[in-house]
Amino acid sequence: MFEPNSIRTLVFDVLGTVVDEAGSVRSEFTGAMVAAGGTPQQGGELARAWSQRFDELLKAIHERTVPWRSTDDLYREALIHSLPEEPRLPKATVRHLAQVSHRLQPWPDAVDALQALSERFLIVALSNGNMSMLADMFRNAGLRWHCVLSGEMVHAYKPDPSVYRLAIDMLHLDPARTLMVAAHPWDLRAAATHGMRTAYIKRAGEGELRDTDRIDVAVDDLSELAAYFEASQEIGA
Amino acid sequence: MFEPNSIRTLVFDVLGTVVDEAGSVRSEFTGAMVAAGGTPQQGGELARAWSQRFDELLKAIHERTVPWRSTDDLYREALIHSLPEEPRLPKATVRHLAQVSHRLQPWPDAVDALQALSERFLIVALSNGNMSMLADMFRNAGLRWHCVLSGEMVHAYKPDPSVYRLAIDMLHLDPARTLMVAAHPWDLRAAATHGMRTAYIKRAGEGELRDTDRIDVAVDDLSELAAYFEASQEIGA
Repeated sequence: MFEPNSIRTLVFDVLGTVVDEAGSVRSEFTGAMVAAGGTPQQGGELARAWSQRFDELLKAIHERTVPWRSTDDLYREALIHSLPEEPRLPKATVRHLAQVSHRLQPWPDAVDALQALSERFLIVALSNGNMSMLADMFRNAGLRWHCVLSGEMVHAYKPDPSVYRLAIDMLHLDPARTLMVAAHPWDLRAAATHGMRTAYIKRAGEGELRDTDRIDVAVDDLSELAAYFEASQEIGA
Repeated sequence: MFEPNSIRTLVFDVLGTVVDEAGSVRSEFTGAMVAAGGTPQQGGELARAWSQRFDELLKAIHERTVPWRSTDDLYREALIHSLPEEPRLPKATVRHLAQVSHRLQPWPDAVDALQALSERFLIVALSNGNMSMLADMFRNAGLRWHCVLSGEMVHAYKPDPSVYRLAIDMLHLDPARTLMVAAHPWDLRAAATHGMRTAYIKRAGEGELRDTDRIDVAVDDLSELAAYFEASQEIGA
């Protein structure tokens, strides 16, 4: 049984959950390809190739076949690996695109919902993105937090246990009173193994729940999460 | 010559600069002493003894005669060391007071000024307080950031160089375009040795400038800092 009024802390996944990582990347890559004489389709292909390579690099780090590197490094390497022969992007454009993660756009509901939720909960960002990427992105997107934690601080990527332990141990959280908020079921499953409660945010293309997943809250976006807690408070009061 | 429009990032000291550490401690200590049958004067004495002991503990860590410990530990130890024989505070009260740092109150100008400054700058907290203390305090005070860094992350206290390097290196800051905002001249002097620009916030009792201090901006509070940058933008535009 899940008791919403027992929750004290919200721990947010960021990439895909709070910001539209895939859409922002696709949009910038497409713009650059078109500017270089290519087609929007070629932009979409670059984004898909980039995403696939990025996942491969993450997987290798997670399996410890290569050492940890920052998301800045992985974004850059995945991009360079995925560039087509034609059209050839100018070097300055490639440098700019390699930093696209610093400019990821928030989902439309994110800024207002975070503001509302921050008035009741301790709100914490817990992201695989490195700290400089997160800081720049939050500044550009207008997203502010009580605390920002990154896998960079333990040189690991979620779902590695050390990243969840970082939040629980450093902030002295009671996992049973802490809600992991994420669009990726794998992230929620990992958080649950540490005793955290789970909220699934249904973002298109970010991953679907399995029948066997035990999720405490499932909502379409962060506004709905804020409304859910507002309703629970009225009932609890 | 200082060019306000060159600044991209504001790095804030927190304890004393954004929150009224001394006033919050004094207020809670006095309340507890009066509740236990003592006088407000005894509360003020406890706060002074606590503060002196806290500074001694910090100094010992800074001089590396003892290993680093968190502010939570130092707050508790300084309190227990300073408790008078009479009136004897109940154990539960002592435990509560030892956590006063998690409840420090913001200076009246802080919340609105941070909000305003966050729309133009990357705003970063760089504090000696440990992360759990900062997170709880920011949640209680309604203070939100793009990035929160603590000396805990490098097991050192400002003015140790490693704490300023943490911010500069982890966030890839250009020190010349970064403004350290603090009420303590010693903090600004240390930041300047790393190439950062400096803003002195004149908070009563937190430290006075020397004639030899070269400070880029000196203001009475954070509202005035926000107004200063607003005016500079109008001139620059």
